[in-house]
Amino acid sequence: MTMTPELYNSRFMKAARCEETDCTPVWIMRQAGRYLPEYMAVRSKTTFIDLCKTPELAAEVTLTAREVLGVDAAILFADLLPILQPMGFDLEYVKGEGPVIHNPLMEAKEIDRVKPVESIEVLDYVFQAIKLIRQDLPADIPLLGFAGAPFTLASYAIEGGGSKNYIRTKTIMYNDEAAWKALMERLVESLSKYLNAQINAGVQAVQIFDSWAGCLSPSDYLRYVQPYTKQLIDSIPSETPLINFLTGNPALMPAQVEAGGQVVGIDWRVDLAEARNIIGTDRAIQGNLDPISLYANLDVLAARTKEVLAANAGHPGHIFNLGHGVQPDMNPDNVKALVKMVHEFSAK
Amino acid sequence: MTMTPELYNSRFMKAARCEETDCTPVWIMRQAGRYLPEYMAVRSKTTFIDLCKTPELAAEVTLTAREVLGVDAAILFADLLPILQPMGFDLEYVKGEGPVIHNPLMEAKEIDRVKPVESIEVLDYVFQAIKLIRQDLPADIPLLGFAGAPFTLASYAIEGGGSKNYIRTKTIMYNDEAAWKALMERLVESLSKYLNAQINAGVQAVQIFDSWAGCLSPSDYLRYVQPYTKQLIDSIPSETPLINFLTGNPALMPAQVEAGGQVVGIDWRVDLAEARNIIGTDRAIQGNLDPISLYANLDVLAARTKEVLAANAGHPGHIFNLGHGVQPDMNPDNVKALVKMVHEFSAK
Repeated sequence: MTMTPELYNSRFMKAARCEETDCTPVWIMRQAGRYLPEYMAVRSKTTFIDLCKTPELAAEVTLTAREVLGVDAAILFADLLPILQPMGFDLEYVKGEGPVIHNPLMEAKEIDRVKPVESIEVLDYVFQAIKLIRQDLPADIPLLGFAGAPFTLASYAIEGGGSKNYIRTKTIMYNDEAAWKALMERLVESLSKYLNAQINAGVQAVQIFDSWAGCLSPSDYLRYVQPYTKQLIDSIPSETPLINFLTGNPALMPAQVEAGGQVVGIDWRVDLAEARNIIGTDRAIQGNLDPISLYANLDVLAARTKEVLAANAGHPGHIFNLGHGVQPDMNPDNVKALVKMVHEFSAK
Repeated sequence: MTMTPELYNSRFMKAARCEETDCTPVWIMRQAGRYLPEYMAVRSKTTFIDLCKTPELAAEVTLTAREVLGVDAAILFADLLPILQPMGFDLEYVKGEGPVIHNPLMEAKEIDRVKPVESIEVLDYVFQAIKLIRQDLPADIPLLGFAGAPFTLASYAIEGGGSKNYIRTKTIMYNDEAAWKALMERLVESLSKYLNAQINAGVQAVQIFDSWAGCLSPSDYLRYVQPYTKQLIDSIPSETPLINFLTGNPALMPAQVEAGGQVVGIDWRVDLAEARNIIGTDRAIQGNLDPISLYANLDVLAARTKEVLAANAGHPGHIFNLGHGVQPDMNPDNVKALVKMVHEFSAK
C-alpha cells in the first residue's frame, strides 16, 4: 500500500514519525462510542456484533465520529474479540453483559484445541469496512486499524470474559510455560495476519491494545508476554507506524518500549514528562489525560489539558489522547471542547 | 504504651526499624480470611459485621490465623468502613454483595453533613478486641492495627461502595477543591483518633491501606491526596512503626514515600529491587509477591518466593508479604508452605 503525500504529511503521521507539526494531533480512544448520538442512531437499529460485521454501518460510525469531533485520525470501528472465533472460540455478545466466551480454556492441556487462523478472509467484513472508510475519509486524515495484544487476548480466551484477578490465566502461565508459549504463538500468528490484512486493506497505522497486561509484575511481563508482543510488532512493516498501548502499570513501561512500536501509548497513571524520560525523544508518545477529566468543568478540563501538553515540553512526537477509552455517559460537547483545546493550546 | 523487650526485639519490629534479623519476617494481608477453615468455623455462626463487633470472636479469628500460619505478626480482624458510621454514613453489609453505603455523597455541597468522629469510644469493640488479642498473643509477636487511608475512605463515602472508574469521586475532587479538602480533613481527624486509640489499646504497629489510590495520576495524588495522608501519618507517635501501603500504581511510589511511614507497603506491579532504589535503605519495605502465585505448583511458588527475596538483595528492613490480600478460595496449605519457605530461604 503506497501512501499519498497528503496522508504522509498529515499531522498524525508526522507526529508518529517525531516530526514537527503545526499543532498537536489528537484522537480519542473509543471515539465512536455510545456517548455519541450519531453512533446511537446507528447502533439502536442493530446489535453490537452486527454493527461490527456490517461494513457500511461500521464505516458510517467511524466516519461520523471523526467528523463531529474534528479529530486528526479515524479509528476503525471493530472489536478485539472476533479474531478468537476462527481460532475455535464460541464467542457471544450477550445483551447488557458484553462478550462471553462459552468455551474458555479451563486448563493448560486444552490449549491444543486452539488453532491459529488459517484464512484471515473470515474477517473480511473488517477489510471491507476499511475500504469503505478510506474512500470517504478526508485525504489528510489517516485511518487506524487495531488488534488486541497477545496477552490481552490470551486472558479473554482463558477467563472467558472480563476478570478481576486473572487467576486462571496466571495459573496456566506459571504452571505450564510450554502450553502458554503455544497459546501465545498461535495468537501472534493470527494477530499478525489480521493486522497485515488491515494494512493491505488501507489503514495507515495500527494500534495494539494490551488493556489487561497491567496486572503483571515487570518480571512476569518480561518472561511471559514481551517476547510475543515483540514478535507481533516485528511482523508489521516498518513504514506503518504501530502504537504499542498498554494500561494499568507504569512500571512495565521500560519493557513495553523494548517490545517495540514507533508510538508508545500510555495511560494517565504516569506523568508524561517521566514517560518521556523513559521512552526518549526518538519515539512518539500517545496519551495521557485521565478520561475522568472530561467530567470536570471546562475551566478545569482546560487546565488539565494544558498540564498534559506542558509535560511533553514541546518535543515533536506527541499524539494527544485519553489514557483510556471515553466513558459511555460522557457529554459529547466536552469531548469536542477537548479536541479544540488541544489544537488551540498547542498551536505554533 | 511501653513496649516489652520481647516485642521490641521481635523479628517484625526489628525489620520495621531496618535492623538485621535471623530471617525475613512474614505476614499475609487478609491472613484471617475465608480461605481458612479456622476462620469459617467462627464466621459461619454469625454475620461479617457482628464478627467485627464482637471482641471475643474478632480476637479468636485473629489469634488462630496467626498461629496456624506461623507468621511473625498478627493483624487485628476488623473492617475499613465502620469508622464512617459515626461520621454520618449509613453503612450496611449486604449478604453476598459486601458493604453498601445507603447515603453516599452525591455532590460536593453535601460534604457539609460529614462530621469528624467526636468520641472514638463508639468503636470501643475494636479496642476491646485489641486488648483480648494482646493478652493471648505470644510475647514476641506484635499485633498490627490498621485503618483505610483518607483517599480510599473518601472514595467509599462518595461512590457508596466499590467503583471501577471513581467518576463521582474525581468529579468532586476536580471541581470543588474546597469541599474535597473539608472531606479529607474530617477523615484525617477521625482516622488519627482511631489509629491513636488502637495504639493506646495495645497494637505495636499500624498499617494504612490506600487500596484505591492507584486510580490517580501522580500529579493528582500529590495535589489531592498526599498532603492528607501525610497529616495522618504525622499524627502517629514516631515510636510506633507505620506501614504506608498503596496498591495499583507504582508511579505514585516517590510521592507515597514522601508522605511518610517507616515501612512502605508495595504491590507486585513493581520489582522490589526498583522499589528499593526509590525508597532507599533507611525505610523498610513490605511486600510484594503476586497473590496469584499461591495458585501455582509449590516448586513454582518456591522459585517466585526466592525471586522476591533476591530482589531485596539482603538489605535489612524487608517484611515479606503478598502485594495484596490472599484470595478467599486459596488452599491454606499453600499459604502455610509460603510462610515456611520465606523463613527457610532467608535464614542467616
